[in-house]
Amino acid sequence: MRSLVLIGHGSHLNGESAGAVYRYAELLRERGLYDEVVEGYWKEEPSLRQVLRTVRSTDVTVIPMFISEGYFTETVIPRELGLGHQGPVPPEGVARVLGGKTVRYTLPYGVHPAMSEVILARAREVLPDLNAEDTALIVLGHGTTRNQNSNRVIYGNADRLRDSGHFAEVHALFLDEDPKVGTWPDVVKAPRVVVVPFFASEGWHTLETIPEDMGLTGAVTEFADTPNAPQTVYYAAPVGTHPDVAEVVLQLAQEARGASGAGGDEDHGHAAAWNAFLALARRGTRIGEAMITPQAGMYELRHALDEGRPAADLQTLVTVEGLRDRTRRDEGGHHRPVHTLRNLPRGWRAILTEAELPRAVHNLYPAVVEESYAHHTHNLRATPWPTTARRQTGIYTKVTRATSEQVEEVAQDVCSKCLKTRLWAGERLGSTVFSGVPGAIPCPEACTLFIAEVREEVSGKRGQGGHGHDH
Amino acid sequence: MRSLVLIGHGSHLNGESAGAVYRYAELLRERGLYDEVVEGYWKEEPSLRQVLRTVRSTDVTVIPMFISEGYFTETVIPRELGLGHQGPVPPEGVARVLGGKTVRYTLPYGVHPAMSEVILARAREVLPDLNAEDTALIVLGHGTTRNQNSNRVIYGNADRLRDSGHFAEVHALFLDEDPKVGTWPDVVKAPRVVVVPFFASEGWHTLETIPEDMGLTGAVTEFADTPNAPQTVYYAAPVGTHPDVAEVVLQLAQEARGASGAGGDEDHGHAAAWNAFLALARRGTRIGEAMITPQAGMYELRHALDEGRPAADLQTLVTVEGLRDRTRRDEGGHHRPVHTLRNLPRGWRAILTEAELPRAVHNLYPAVVEESYAHHTHNLRATPWPTTARRQTGIYTKVTRATSEQVEEVAQDVCSKCLKTRLWAGERLGSTVFSGVPGAIPCPEACTLFIAEVREEVSGKRGQGGHGHDH
Repeated sequence: MRSLVLIGHGSHLNGESAGAVYRYAELLRERGLYDEVVEGYWKEEPSLRQVLRTVRSTDVTVIPMFISEGYFTETVIPRELGLGHQGPVPPEGVARVLGGKTVRYTLPYGVHPAMSEVILARAREVLPDLNAEDTALIVLGHGTTRNQNSNRVIYGNADRLRDSGHFAEVHALFLDEDPKVGTWPDVVKAPRVVVVPFFASEGWHTLETIPEDMGLTGAVTEFADTPNAPQTVYYAAPVGTHPDVAEVVLQLAQEARGASGAGGDEDHGHAAAWNAFLALARRGTRIGEAMITPQAGMYELRHALDEGRPAADLQTLVTVEGLRDRTRRDEGGHHRPVHTLRNLPRGWRAILTEAELPRAVHNLYPAVVEESYAHHTHNLRATPWPTTARRQTGIYTKVTRATSEQVEEVAQDVCSKCLKTRLWAGERLGSTVFSGVPGAIPCPEACTLFIAEVREEVSGKRGQGGHGHDH
Repeated sequence: MRSLVLIGHGSHLNGESAGAVYRYAELLRERGLYDEVVEGYWKEEPSLRQVLRTVRSTDVTVIPMFISEGYFTETVIPRELGLGHQGPVPPEGVARVLGGKTVRYTLPYGVHPAMSEVILARAREVLPDLNAEDTALIVLGHGTTRNQNSNRVIYGNADRLRDSGHFAEVHALFLDEDPKVGTWPDVVKAPRVVVVPFFASEGWHTLETIPEDMGLTGAVTEFADTPNAPQTVYYAAPVGTHPDVAEVVLQLAQEARGASGAGGDEDHGHAAAWNAFLALARRGTRIGEAMITPQAGMYELRHALDEGRPAADLQTLVTVEGLRDRTRRDEGGHHRPVHTLRNLPRGWRAILTEAELPRAVHNLYPAVVEESYAHHTHNLRATPWPTTARRQTGIYTKVTRATSEQVEEVAQDVCSKCLKTRLWAGERLGSTVFSGVPGAIPCPEACTLFIAEVREEVSGKRGQGGHGHDH
């Protein structure tokens, strides 16, 4: 049995941020090479602190879904996963045994040599008949990030693609360092030029900066007055959203596992939690704001406030993904980075099989079954706020400066809207879903939404509306 | 059967604002002269638009719990109650038949001549041996409000108390008009001076302005250098919070009813709604976020998220008032002006008799049973937003300027947190609590919280944190 974990950044504000990771997880699930594909996020749920607990097997490969190495892949993710590793990740990855699970942490997908294939695929999308006679390729990187490896990755891809013989010329250009992208007319000779942005997703740079710096007017731009005019530039979509990234992820994961054989076992704690939960579900149960009702061999999930509402008045969902997407926003359309906030939208019912139920409940309330069962069986350890605060780095270092009054003030705003009981603040919780109390959910550690709000509080920026924390 | 309705201002922000009206309602209930005493508020629930629907009998006397006549007693309350009356209320009050109920609307308690007794009672609290030989009384009013009657009320009380012979001198002085309170040393001759502020409650004026203007240092202040020194000033509490105001209310109500005999009948619609609800409760039911369970001849109410939680882990409440006070704030300690916002606090259970249950549910979800039953029986009429907006006066007149986009924007923030379904915006609601759906609650008209938020939106002040609307 083998588990694949994809790590994304996520967002406290933007409901679309996790979309790319969702899609890769779906593609990889369809491939069926892993018994499960689980997502974890810095700013959403399951969080980096929770995600390993939600994994079913003892053989776990963790892929940071980032385009380049940097602060998140080298500092935040290893720290939050508890890998006991900081700094550059070696090519073979980092392997640890954590809580009985073998966890392999890899380099981000973007540094894998197979990304050259994705660049080529993106190039072919905009110029199917690209060829070595008349076509130049520009691999376009950001450059000058904190991590010096990022331009090496661009050069490496350019070298490989030059060697591949598909293009007349291949250039590595950058937005923020030399050689700058604006110099392309001086260096590119071929009449047809494909530009592939080596970026994670569409955004400010791909939609604004690059077109402006290059003088592009759309997917195809004719240039009549460049030194080598006439030239036509074909502007490709960013590599980070190409479906073939899923193949790169599989290669990365395969290489990290090396010759480690048939995989692991089912994790006992995980299995016990879900078996106990399924036993509840078979009798009908409630968890958080939701209720689960066995129905003709299937299970119906709905908001408990919708109990008794005729099915015709509700939107019927029949897939785990449909349920996930329907409950991603509250009734006002606001993103729900923390799923246990008491704002689960109403108006839907999901009809699912018993095989689908665990993943549906996992999406609805990530890590709640595992953490609740651990609490129920006295195996959940709380992390007090000072420990969480001291672990923070970067812009969050300053949360250690929060007084206990400030922490409580933030809790009164943020946590008072949440179902969870703050074990990390010394609150007691005598029940759980497993003793039949739907709203009794343990919170063993402050979440990143809370941490971000404490940072705003310490910075004197809270209560000014429009929270800007999304780093 | 007779119903007494007390109208308070209430507050969207301050959970203590309704406290005085709560207390008078409790005192009047204890007196037992009315079959019920119901409160209604401009800024809380039940709202002025809802309160008459929540009344049990067809004989209704409505007392505005204000210290003086003015904008609220002459414009806002009559308009929102639908009395078809605007402007000064005649001494005998205004009587109307509304929805089969005889509704008598009186002057505010503060203008009743019996307030002179309350002034005397306040004076005796600070100076029990006050007498006609050595004691002067200052009746202290605000003065210069929009309504010219307010100083006449002060003079009237001063005249009556002068005639009563309890004091050596009686003076009417004012904060904001002549004769000003600061002139007291020139006009008051007696060595002992009692000052009774004719104000609704303790506040900025009674705690800061008056002591400063008069040179007071506490409840008792010695003056050695006034023209008539030595003089001692005894500073009384404001009249508006004295328990005897309840007697004034009873007199007002009695006079409004005049010779109208034995009272009214039980209102059919009201009785039908509550009989239907009690039938549900006897089997156990859920309403909003709460659940009601019959238990050994009593009823237990608790938050549905606390279902199954051991009683020992919950705070047990045994009175309607205890339940009201426990659920007045959310889990973060924030005031809950709208009870159907999805922030009912957890952690309590109330054990009540069947006789207490209706009032408990009324406090938990004011007007929800009546409005839900009306909707269930197709008798609830929705008021579209434009009608609500056009009805507004004063600072709220500008809400008519809101575009439909602005109205929706506010709804996405405010209403998305509320259990109710906006019939006033054309939303459909096919179920109610009476068809077994706990979260299906009709909203026939925009509430004052919504109106206030639309005003902020139109003024460009929303989303700046710290909403200031409380007018």
